[in-house]
Amino acid sequence: MKVEIISIGDELLIGQVVNTNASWMAEELNKAGLAVVHIEAISDDSESIKNALDHAYLRADIILMTGGLGPTKDDITKSVLAEYFNSKLVFHEPSFRQVEQLFKVRNYKVTDVNRRQAEIPDKCIPLHNKNGTAPGMWFEEKGKVYVSMPGVPFEMHALMTYQIIPRLMNQFHLGHIFHKTIMTFGMGESRLAGMIEDVEDNLPTHIKLAYLPQPGIVRLRLTGSGSDKKILETEVCHFVDLIRQKVPALIFGYDDISMEEVVGRQLNEKLKTVATAESCTGGYMAHLITGISGSSDYFKGSIIAYANEVKVRHLGVLQDDLDKHGAVSREVVEQMARGVTQQLGTDYGLATSGIAGPDGGTEEKPVGTVWIALATPNKVISRLLHLGEHRGRNIRISALAALNMLRLELNPV
Amino acid sequence: MKVEIISIGDELLIGQVVNTNASWMAEELNKAGLAVVHIEAISDDSESIKNALDHAYLRADIILMTGGLGPTKDDITKSVLAEYFNSKLVFHEPSFRQVEQLFKVRNYKVTDVNRRQAEIPDKCIPLHNKNGTAPGMWFEEKGKVYVSMPGVPFEMHALMTYQIIPRLMNQFHLGHIFHKTIMTFGMGESRLAGMIEDVEDNLPTHIKLAYLPQPGIVRLRLTGSGSDKKILETEVCHFVDLIRQKVPALIFGYDDISMEEVVGRQLNEKLKTVATAESCTGGYMAHLITGISGSSDYFKGSIIAYANEVKVRHLGVLQDDLDKHGAVSREVVEQMARGVTQQLGTDYGLATSGIAGPDGGTEEKPVGTVWIALATPNKVISRLLHLGEHRGRNIRISALAALNMLRLELNPV
Repeated sequence: MKVEIISIGDELLIGQVVNTNASWMAEELNKAGLAVVHIEAISDDSESIKNALDHAYLRADIILMTGGLGPTKDDITKSVLAEYFNSKLVFHEPSFRQVEQLFKVRNYKVTDVNRRQAEIPDKCIPLHNKNGTAPGMWFEEKGKVYVSMPGVPFEMHALMTYQIIPRLMNQFHLGHIFHKTIMTFGMGESRLAGMIEDVEDNLPTHIKLAYLPQPGIVRLRLTGSGSDKKILETEVCHFVDLIRQKVPALIFGYDDISMEEVVGRQLNEKLKTVATAESCTGGYMAHLITGISGSSDYFKGSIIAYANEVKVRHLGVLQDDLDKHGAVSREVVEQMARGVTQQLGTDYGLATSGIAGPDGGTEEKPVGTVWIALATPNKVISRLLHLGEHRGRNIRISALAALNMLRLELNPV
Repeated sequence: MKVEIISIGDELLIGQVVNTNASWMAEELNKAGLAVVHIEAISDDSESIKNALDHAYLRADIILMTGGLGPTKDDITKSVLAEYFNSKLVFHEPSFRQVEQLFKVRNYKVTDVNRRQAEIPDKCIPLHNKNGTAPGMWFEEKGKVYVSMPGVPFEMHALMTYQIIPRLMNQFHLGHIFHKTIMTFGMGESRLAGMIEDVEDNLPTHIKLAYLPQPGIVRLRLTGSGSDKKILETEVCHFVDLIRQKVPALIFGYDDISMEEVVGRQLNEKLKTVATAESCTGGYMAHLITGISGSSDYFKGSIIAYANEVKVRHLGVLQDDLDKHGAVSREVVEQMARGVTQQLGTDYGLATSGIAGPDGGTEEKPVGTVWIALATPNKVISRLLHLGEHRGRNIRISALAALNMLRLELNPV
């Protein structure tokens, strides 16, 4: 069954609102085994809505619309649908009682505008909107299902979850879809593709592989479709395993887990603690780690040593080494990593020192030159990174690379 | 001129990625005076791409596509475009040199896959992608402009900003549009609207006001359109000034400047330095400050004191006060702010201590209770915030509120 999502509203077309409704719906529909083939955002005028419905008819079996059901003048979806389906607007008593009840709770007065909200096309099945005043509307025409719902996220969520998805699953005999996402760090898309080419070339036609790159990270998503859920899962997991065997050290997790969450879980499991000493990442590593609720169990703190004097005074970096090798050097970053574990009394210490850019590069050390280090209870290891020109990207990749060093130390491949 | 945006990629259709590219593009195009009439997300298969192009032709004058230009097998946009425009793929030397150069910096080996990335349809004008390996492609066919660019946001941003929007503005005769954005912090959209109601009610019809809320921040964008550029600018600036007079202390800057950039400029101007002592913000304040290139001129560093022992040992917080008042208290946050200025030898110190959530709240101090403090050369001031339940949002608003304290101290209204 193919689904099309039509998001109605000018606020989407001027970029004022990001279309999180559509991605939320797409994810929920996918989990239910319904494939979304098309998402579109259109203006809330009659012509655009009718055109979108005409086109959707050619592509999809199920057409889901959000937006344009509020009480104000620019919300015209309902009357357009009535016209499109040769239906007339009739007063729907239960929907009106729902408005009355909601307004009573909020101490609002019911107006004529609200009364009109309870008018629905006579050809539709009204769907109870437990979080708002406008009911959802379910139409069946020419073998297709059309559903219209409000664009307010928490009203839409409730309608999708309690009304629309259960009805769709009940009405259609659905095939199964199974996804597994492999999270890799440290290799670009094209080199990674070369390394797993054998596996990709041998994928059966009902299993697809997609590369989803982010700075430093490439997500590999395997999607299988078929009739037997059990067999499908086993098949997809078999190919996940083949990929894992090709690039075991690159894989830090599955299904959209973040690097900081993986490292946090490892530290929690082993009852170990970490601190960071940051120069070029400027607190971003600490920010990533503390983005995870519960991180106070394993994260004690950081010394962000942007100025060299802070490196010397608070991390014990030797002035001599700063003078001789510069702040962006193996010597300094290793002393930073060791220093922060001593100062904060942790098991592990991560450090960064580099030139994030866009300024500050030299011929010997161009922008993107970054040293990272990890101090463990019995050693310090360090790595030199050659990154690009983009400051924010350099900061992010450096932080992820340092966290990745700790990940590999805690669970060697 | 009507614009259609086509976002290509299955990751959008399964809801794995939110289509922030489209909303960013829509906003930039609007600022340039180009109206987006349709946004759609489609699968990266040949049939879907061709159908989308056919339909877009009927709706728009300019068709902008993102996605499907990476080096791997699931990226097929380029060959589909070549076929659609009866064009053949030819090797483009300058694009290949760009790949070589990028890879040289990163110490990567150029592969056949990369060589293929430099092949482009012979009917297109290649657009230099300064942040990546795949060039943008500009086609002109049947009186319409079609542009294809990669889906990686920072590659797309650069192509749009430096290549595509200037070319579109040059090629089409666009009326004048003038924008001015007022950046406010610390008041919600509806209260703010009440305070500037008089000004809004008196706007002429060719000047529009939009409220663009973000966590903690509301951007007020005034957009005027007209034929005389000079008159238009004067008019818009007049209304900006009227709004400024209504809410002077809330305005931290104009035209999408960030709070951290404003504070950075102030510190630079006055030759003053700052350090941060962070508990609940966990390094995010330092990350914001160091996101600005050149921040080493005024930022010395931070002590991220997540554990109480770090607060005592490295910031001089009194154990007694921790025991008596708890870490989330006026006493502790003020000692943190004072402590970090002393430890790092700066003019100013910013501190945060709070319960970011979602766990850790108590009846007396629920999630969202945050103390912030500012130490100056002769005093310490602090404020108590009552925020919401959302961890990331609480961290961000706390950091901005602390920076805003410093802003108002450096330039009192």
